[in-house]
Amino acid sequence: MKPYTAQTPTTGLSTMGPQAPPGMSTSRRSHTNTTLTKGVPTAVVYCEGNFGQIDGKTANGLVRYSQAYRILSVIDSELEGQDSGQVLDNVSNAIPIVQDLEAAVTREAHIPDSLIYGMAPSTGKMSPADREVVLDAIALGMNIVNGLHEYFGDDPEISNAAEAANVTIRDIRKHRPSKDMRLFDGSVSRVKAIRIAVLGTDCAIGKRTTATILARELNERGIKTILVGTGQTGLMQGAKYGIALDAVPPQFCCGELERVIVAASRGDEPDVILIEGQGALSHPAFCTSAFILRGSQPHAVVLQHAPKRAHRCDFPSMPVPGPKSEITLIEAFADTRVIGITLNHEAMTGTEVNRAIDSLSRDLGIPVTDALTRPEVHLSDMVLAAFPQLRPLPLAAAE
Amino acid sequence: MKPYTAQTPTTGLSTMGPQAPPGMSTSRRSHTNTTLTKGVPTAVVYCEGNFGQIDGKTANGLVRYSQAYRILSVIDSELEGQDSGQVLDNVSNAIPIVQDLEAAVTREAHIPDSLIYGMAPSTGKMSPADREVVLDAIALGMNIVNGLHEYFGDDPEISNAAEAANVTIRDIRKHRPSKDMRLFDGSVSRVKAIRIAVLGTDCAIGKRTTATILARELNERGIKTILVGTGQTGLMQGAKYGIALDAVPPQFCCGELERVIVAASRGDEPDVILIEGQGALSHPAFCTSAFILRGSQPHAVVLQHAPKRAHRCDFPSMPVPGPKSEITLIEAFADTRVIGITLNHEAMTGTEVNRAIDSLSRDLGIPVTDALTRPEVHLSDMVLAAFPQLRPLPLAAAE
Repeated sequence: MKPYTAQTPTTGLSTMGPQAPPGMSTSRRSHTNTTLTKGVPTAVVYCEGNFGQIDGKTANGLVRYSQAYRILSVIDSELEGQDSGQVLDNVSNAIPIVQDLEAAVTREAHIPDSLIYGMAPSTGKMSPADREVVLDAIALGMNIVNGLHEYFGDDPEISNAAEAANVTIRDIRKHRPSKDMRLFDGSVSRVKAIRIAVLGTDCAIGKRTTATILARELNERGIKTILVGTGQTGLMQGAKYGIALDAVPPQFCCGELERVIVAASRGDEPDVILIEGQGALSHPAFCTSAFILRGSQPHAVVLQHAPKRAHRCDFPSMPVPGPKSEITLIEAFADTRVIGITLNHEAMTGTEVNRAIDSLSRDLGIPVTDALTRPEVHLSDMVLAAFPQLRPLPLAAAE
Repeated sequence: MKPYTAQTPTTGLSTMGPQAPPGMSTSRRSHTNTTLTKGVPTAVVYCEGNFGQIDGKTANGLVRYSQAYRILSVIDSELEGQDSGQVLDNVSNAIPIVQDLEAAVTREAHIPDSLIYGMAPSTGKMSPADREVVLDAIALGMNIVNGLHEYFGDDPEISNAAEAANVTIRDIRKHRPSKDMRLFDGSVSRVKAIRIAVLGTDCAIGKRTTATILARELNERGIKTILVGTGQTGLMQGAKYGIALDAVPPQFCCGELERVIVAASRGDEPDVILIEGQGALSHPAFCTSAFILRGSQPHAVVLQHAPKRAHRCDFPSMPVPGPKSEITLIEAFADTRVIGITLNHEAMTGTEVNRAIDSLSRDLGIPVTDALTRPEVHLSDMVLAAFPQLRPLPLAAAE
């Protein structure tokens, strides 16, 4: 609901939207448009009135990183004409923001393959105007991708329209049928990979972004790493293993997360499995991280924190806890240890980030970094410091 | 899955099934058959192969206590011909166990109003043979009450049959439509009632039974108390306020529980609101109690524990924690305090219960009782010791 406060970007750090994309700070790589154009379906992201804001986090994530869809444009009439990368991160990404569905379609040579409903309001609900856009896209022959709790496949009007137009509906959050879900049985404890959960002190604080960068860095250093997604944005982006945990009946949450971790272990035999956290264990409204800790039984936790965020996102009356109390809570709740802090630098200058890194690492006695503005090797070093057995053997003995 | 070990009842204590019913130990009242026969729909409880066992806990609960249905009989061919009260608690309740649906119907003058699917297997799933019984009951014109995660209303065969027979399906666990559910907003903190959650060290350990007795005792002492149900059995029994929390999408769990607590506060203006716990906060598979602690923000917790239960029910490889570690976990996870321990006396002699009460109260420094075998006033005294402001004023000053 509440946008990040937009500020004059004097520091070069992003001040709007939930942080910059993986890799932006160092190489400005665009994973969306340059590396993935062949054979990937095209998509327009619908994010009316919310792009760059917290409730637009699905759209924000997709324009920054998407393996599963090639994003053509974003619909948000309030930002029409702007470049979505500029709006989010002050870096052009050649994905324009357009007025409406008609504008999104007429600028392409072909009708785009999909419309992605790119808003994830905390209420999980759709307005009547949004419904019209979905029906118009179906009438144009576009497939629909939906991350809401309201499943379009269960909506008679939308599902009948989709059937008539011979298009598909992908309800990202829809869980498997109850009869096919399974209970936790402890098999995760026999998974050989080191399991690290990336938790946070609040919602929409950059857990997925940090986890994505950490996975890439570890892989580039020769440590085979799989990121297990637990939210709708990661699944839309194309996570190979994942589950939209906040829509799974609680009885099955631990078991279904365990199932995908075991599947990732069997399928890819990684050295490390990272698990995307959700909400915050301390959060009065969103403590799905309790299931993440129980279901993944992680050996370690990396904790994402935004030093300048005073109140929980969407909950102005609830202060964000400090990292120390969150660490105490996590380590009391589960047999694990927090091995490092990663910062979300929203509303901070570079100097403030430096100071926060120094003071937090001194106070807490663990490494602290910012995945976006500090060398990415600091992030993977955090993991190697905790698990030196992961360090790849040198190719030749040192002289 | 795994039945309680049936033992020769030398102590007079129940050794089979999840403890005796509310009030049985002192007055042997049957809430099911004697006090509630007028205007209440009749029901047959289907519990084939599971009555008296852990996975039959819905049936066990209903024959012991039901405000919403008058229970006529229980179907379980393995116990055919026995009295369900004798099987559970060694006390007749005049609710017979019959061979099959035909036997349940032919012994009545009228077709019973409802068939209650009275098994709650940890998997939440139905067998093909069970399906036939449900379809047969529908063909006889009986309404169906279902506590499974598999919603009968979403099952084409069952829902079409129900429509053709003009009977209703009540899917107890089915949550409200996503668009109608709400998020936690902190309004529970403005509820005036003292809120006490009844948690436990395991599943199926007697939390609901203890909470039911405690609610009755407090009401009888003039302290207006409402029990908020959080599981399907309590809702089937007729809880005025409640929600089947283990089927609500995690995003809405805290908010939906908060909603029913606020509704109970507004509707009845109680002095005390008790909240039924689920699973155990320490449980690797079922930690819905995390949502209960966040959503109800309880002032206090009563902890149910079975000293002789070595392993978690249905999980033979997982030991049950001691009460001390569970208390530490609960008090670390939430800003609350554990004010007393209540025992499940399964597999214990009276002497062993005495010893456990003495040693636990000494070690933990809080009151300990057994809601079923010790005077019920000990249970309400536990609450009054923690909240003396609840004590009703004496009618006349002491001389």
